[in-house]
Amino acid sequence: MTLARPSAAYPDPSWWGWGDEAEVPVLSQSVRRLLEDGLGVRAPAPRPDSIEDLPLAPLRLSGDAVGALAEVAGEQNVTSEPEARLRHTGGKSTPDLLRLRALDTTGAPDAVVLPGSHDEVLELLRICSERAIAVVPYGGGTSVVGGLEPAADRFTGVVALDLRRMNALVALDDESQLAVLEPGLRGPEAEALLRERGYTIGHFPQSFEYATLGGFAATRSSGQASAGYGRFDDLVLALRVATPQGTVETGRAPKTAAGPDLRQLFLGSEGTLGVITALTVELRRAPQLTVYDGWRFPSFAEGMRALRVLAQDGPMPTVLRLSDEAETALSLAAPDSLGEPPEVGGCLVIVGHEGSAEELSSRVAGVKWALERSGADRDRNAGEQWAQARYHGPYLRDALLDAGALVETLETVAFWSRLPALYEAVSRALRDSLTGQGTPPVILCHVSHLYRSGASLYFTVACAQADDPVGQWRTAKRTAADAIMAAGGSITHHHGVGTDHRPWYELETGALGVRALRAVKAELDPSGILNPGVLLAPAD
Amino acid sequence: MTLARPSAAYPDPSWWGWGDEAEVPVLSQSVRRLLEDGLGVRAPAPRPDSIEDLPLAPLRLSGDAVGALAEVAGEQNVTSEPEARLRHTGGKSTPDLLRLRALDTTGAPDAVVLPGSHDEVLELLRICSERAIAVVPYGGGTSVVGGLEPAADRFTGVVALDLRRMNALVALDDESQLAVLEPGLRGPEAEALLRERGYTIGHFPQSFEYATLGGFAATRSSGQASAGYGRFDDLVLALRVATPQGTVETGRAPKTAAGPDLRQLFLGSEGTLGVITALTVELRRAPQLTVYDGWRFPSFAEGMRALRVLAQDGPMPTVLRLSDEAETALSLAAPDSLGEPPEVGGCLVIVGHEGSAEELSSRVAGVKWALERSGADRDRNAGEQWAQARYHGPYLRDALLDAGALVETLETVAFWSRLPALYEAVSRALRDSLTGQGTPPVILCHVSHLYRSGASLYFTVACAQADDPVGQWRTAKRTAADAIMAAGGSITHHHGVGTDHRPWYELETGALGVRALRAVKAELDPSGILNPGVLLAPAD
Repeated sequence: MTLARPSAAYPDPSWWGWGDEAEVPVLSQSVRRLLEDGLGVRAPAPRPDSIEDLPLAPLRLSGDAVGALAEVAGEQNVTSEPEARLRHTGGKSTPDLLRLRALDTTGAPDAVVLPGSHDEVLELLRICSERAIAVVPYGGGTSVVGGLEPAADRFTGVVALDLRRMNALVALDDESQLAVLEPGLRGPEAEALLRERGYTIGHFPQSFEYATLGGFAATRSSGQASAGYGRFDDLVLALRVATPQGTVETGRAPKTAAGPDLRQLFLGSEGTLGVITALTVELRRAPQLTVYDGWRFPSFAEGMRALRVLAQDGPMPTVLRLSDEAETALSLAAPDSLGEPPEVGGCLVIVGHEGSAEELSSRVAGVKWALERSGADRDRNAGEQWAQARYHGPYLRDALLDAGALVETLETVAFWSRLPALYEAVSRALRDSLTGQGTPPVILCHVSHLYRSGASLYFTVACAQADDPVGQWRTAKRTAADAIMAAGGSITHHHGVGTDHRPWYELETGALGVRALRAVKAELDPSGILNPGVLLAPAD
Repeated sequence: MTLARPSAAYPDPSWWGWGDEAEVPVLSQSVRRLLEDGLGVRAPAPRPDSIEDLPLAPLRLSGDAVGALAEVAGEQNVTSEPEARLRHTGGKSTPDLLRLRALDTTGAPDAVVLPGSHDEVLELLRICSERAIAVVPYGGGTSVVGGLEPAADRFTGVVALDLRRMNALVALDDESQLAVLEPGLRGPEAEALLRERGYTIGHFPQSFEYATLGGFAATRSSGQASAGYGRFDDLVLALRVATPQGTVETGRAPKTAAGPDLRQLFLGSEGTLGVITALTVELRRAPQLTVYDGWRFPSFAEGMRALRVLAQDGPMPTVLRLSDEAETALSLAAPDSLGEPPEVGGCLVIVGHEGSAEELSSRVAGVKWALERSGADRDRNAGEQWAQARYHGPYLRDALLDAGALVETLETVAFWSRLPALYEAVSRALRDSLTGQGTPPVILCHVSHLYRSGASLYFTVACAQADDPVGQWRTAKRTAADAIMAAGGSITHHHGVGTDHRPWYELETGALGVRALRAVKAELDPSGILNPGVLLAPAD
């Protein structure tokens, strides 16, 4: 019972970096000078030549266990080949990539299983529960917060449950403008199937090209066009979830007053409460028009004020993003030109409009008028430049890691009145921590997700790699996260919790809130096999 | 630490009916004729003259227990006086009112306790937990689904925890456009405190005049202006909740990716998981302009199609409501003129616009254009008529019950593609069930809450009271609820679950979903004292 599937298999991402190797830029002379003279980057970090150079811990799963899984999913859909195991090791966080470069493959699964249906997932979870095999639900593998790092000690092995075979457009309801989709569809695959039928989901996070719909839901992903289309968790109308104890189905209607909203327990559960096997998602008509535009504000504070007024009084464009002075100067909005001297100072605003000609007619003019009134100057080419490079940021990280730099991003969200202090506190924490470690950083920031009551801050930080770059990262991360909590921000706006944010997530949720979540987990997953150690500390 | 409180105590509602006795209309001759000739209403149902005529079960709580509660809340804030107990018995559902008329006061609490602070609530819950005293959190007492009907057998008594003393505007954040408010504030009290400061919440359910903010949150209330301002659960940014096991605080930011959203567990929990002691709510600027307008469509189907297009393609007005042919004919939009012959046929649409002059300029014209294009004719006075009578519906019920009629409302919500069949199925179920009981009904319906993917249906049904009107109601209710489930609707859009909807709520949530909720309940409220039997069947 499916309407359609992608016509071709999606290419595997690079095993050592973000996605398509061919997209990794060659750093210009000016960038190399900036790294060497500005940040003191010295030795380029080595990277293994071939995936075959990576070591791998011996298999822990018995042949009997692998056989039981193969009986459910089919022989051809269960493998313990080294390359498959390595390609499902960790995610794409900076420490994940650094560990790989250091030939550390801790956390590699013992087997990769590719289920084909909800019922197969149910049966696989039942078997793994009985045999104490940890299960890591695997979508695009793009976690940047250690979401693919199971605490597997007390289990007999680890299975990566790769959902790529569950990639159908199951149903489309034109009248209700919704679609039922399987979790293994990658962003571009889902969009292609829907665009053919006149629709879009409108969800375009930076991970769009590799991440999956199941992952978007499980991590409460938020896309670059969230101002117009909403966050992914706003767009999910219903979920089907397989757990070791059976199936949960939520969502018979857009909204109800029928008790607590169980959708909101599984959204953000990061694979710890169940495996999402189908999603019902709200659709929009595919836009007739797409217009990107750039503006400059004299200062970050003035830009923030103008964005707040737009978020509170409207009209809201589809994409709205403000870079601080440092990010504007380094032109991170267009990473290919990084390091070239900035033409104009100030703070860059990217404005994108998508929709019908009718919708755009008054909205484009309204936003233009509001920005001009707030003191912004037009920067005509910046919009298109940004749109062309919108998914390229992570490739620059690959090149910078190659060159011996440490580069990382982190994000938070808070109410408007807390944002200026939060911005200062996180910037200071990163600067102090890294400078204290002998590697003074460059720190950039932008605002890219806006709400009536607040907004997110997204930081990019780059410095020279120290001798122990993972330790260097961990110290800076801890300092920044402490600063976020002290300044009243949330530990994450859209990257998720994983293992990296877990201590602060537990602080933010409070001891009793954590107990409530653990109670749900114990009920749905009594053996604790689902992504152990992610979100919540592993059970004793 | 409070900014302001209401300057005067709010008047108590009528003990035998909806709210202010003076508002109960005198039925016109034409209505009486309609009841007698059309519905076969015969004997007027008796109603006790005075609250003192009502019987009351003997007190179960020991003096020692009452003393322990008084020690926390103060002597003057704990009472077991008969009138106070009776005024906290049941809610305002039709069976609640019928039972009261039949001198049935089952479920009366043994004591009414008025806590003054979060810490007092915590301590009261601890004591009640220790002593196995059931606790019914009490806001406005306006539940129409049996939300105030505790299953108290296995407890040593029942306390109504009336939150009226917790009625402060605690804080206002102008920059973030949010307010922290206490749960005991009634709708008009909260609006008055906020309007003085230039803001509105924009939440105006029919229960607005008596219900409280805590109740709005605990039941996922949805107001008449939900198209413009959103549902109450969309407006809640943070909650502070007291439970027998301590405090849960949720919401540091507008939205986050930090795990499952715990706000969404307490929203809709109907007092079963904790007592909401503070709410952070999103505000809007108080509107400069308010415009109400009426339109007529030739048929309900054409009106539904036009409303769907508005919900999906915009622009959306602040209030949008469509009556079916029967509701339009009976002019229930303006109950004072009920029974007068309709001037024009078709289906009435009420459109309300609120906002700044700037916002309204293009929106009013856009909606007008869309409605005209869809074939609607202007009905100039209907908008203002509706706005004036917007909170009066329940008073008409009081008069009709007096006259010997049975009158009830019920609501559901579903995706657009399911709505026509759902409308037919519920209408048929009500008609068949009541006709089969010898009391053929009048059935009216309107759509008043719209989403991109679906809408709610709100039914009003009236017929003659049978000899056992509560039994008559129960049979019809069961038949209608079964029809809702079979046609793919949710058991409630905004009335909540209470005890009346519990069996269908459990069906809708599924066995495993119910187990997950029970696990949360067992963790936060291990003695099960909080509103037992509401939402979920009482524990064995």
